Amino acid sequence: MILYDYFRSSAAYRVRIALSLKGLAPERRFVHLRKGEQRAAQFLDVNPQGLVPALVDGSQVFTQSLAIIEYLDETHPQPPLLPASPGDRAWVRSVAQAIACDIHPIDNLRVLIHLKDAFGADQAARDEWYRHWIREGFNAIERQLVARATGPCCFGATPTLADVFLIPQVANAARMDMTLDPWPRIRAINDHCTALPAFAAAHPTRQPDAEP
Amino acid sequence: MILYDYFRSSAAYRVRIALSLKGLAPERRFVHLRKGEQRAAQFLDVNPQGLVPALVDGSQVFTQSLAIIEYLDETHPQPPLLPASPGDRAWVRSVAQAIACDIHPIDNLRVLIHLKDAFGADQAARDEWYRHWIREGFNAIERQLVARATGPCCFGATPTLADVFLIPQVANAARMDMTLDPWPRIRAINDHCTALPAFAAAHPTRQPDAEP
Repeated sequence: MILYDYFRSSAAYRVRIALSLKGLAPERRFVHLRKGEQRAAQFLDVNPQGLVPALVDGSQVFTQSLAIIEYLDETHPQPPLLPASPGDRAWVRSVAQAIACDIHPIDNLRVLIHLKDAFGADQAARDEWYRHWIREGFNAIERQLVARATGPCCFGATPTLADVFLIPQVANAARMDMTLDPWPRIRAINDHCTALPAFAAAHPTRQPDAEP
Repeated sequence: MILYDYFRSSAAYRVRIALSLKGLAPERRFVHLRKGEQRAAQFLDVNPQGLVPALVDGSQVFTQSLAIIEYLDETHPQPPLLPASPGDRAWVRSVAQAIACDIHPIDNLRVLIHLKDAFGADQAARDEWYRHWIREGFNAIERQLVARATGPCCFGATPTLADVFLIPQVANAARMDMTLDPWPRIRAINDHCTALPAFAAAHPTRQPDAEP
């Protein structure tokens, strides 16, 4: 397998966590998003969306972090990243998707660049935009997590898709100097998961392409 | 089952298509997004995110259209909305998620309202923002679909999760007076699917809460 990766992409960070939990270590190729390498023809042939991560397995190329991680979970079932019952699976998926759909894409680099181009948004305005969607999202997710707080992870004792998505989003919040004070359940889950070796190994600062 | 719905929500439209394909007809409750009913305490108790759709099945409440539809597919497997092999499933999911993550949330009503509040974006600027992300998304999805054009639907002969997500996004593009000329494969799939009874019955204009 080959993972197209960028240390600071939180979508790639999710896939790194999932790979790490599954004990998989694919070849890594780095796509420098701030240098625009995702728009190079060579990479667009891999992923026409021009986004990382992309995962190559044999002759197949997979895109979208959620689809990639569900693929990994189906092809490498241990440890499972989804619970057994359909209702619980839907709950876990909904937490992951509240991040994957309703926080992260709105704060994505290409959106921030477009805010600057279309509305002349300066750095301070873009930062506030970024924090706004994290606040909105975390307020809702905190309620959802508190309602089913049954263990140290989002769902029970071991990490699921929900934690795999939550922890990189918390890292983004930290990068924006946000405190987790309003969301104690998210903070507790983050403290627990980031101490686990699989999560620690996937952290942006631990990657070969990391920059200060 | 109870579906919290709004005729013009394309996320709810996806769930209506999936229910319709599965032959399921839950009780419907309408949440008028333009009147702000999604921010009423009564609805926030159902979905703290304040977004439709939400699906209630017995004592469980499900949110996030993608999670809801995977739940329906797991609990009512016929007809299947995902192919059998993990690689094909990942491909279908990645098309759905290119819409669910990278087009739709950026154009969501709450984001458009925030553009107005934060940057004073007028209607014309908000419409252009809306079209920009559809263009970006459809350009990539068209390439992805053409690369595996094996039938009248996104993946083969019968609708999958990919069509369930694509058709409501095309309806949004039409509402914004966008032509499908640049994306012939998307247009052909849309023509095929919208003629199917399950898709037709789920169209916004066919809902009890529809407005002109």
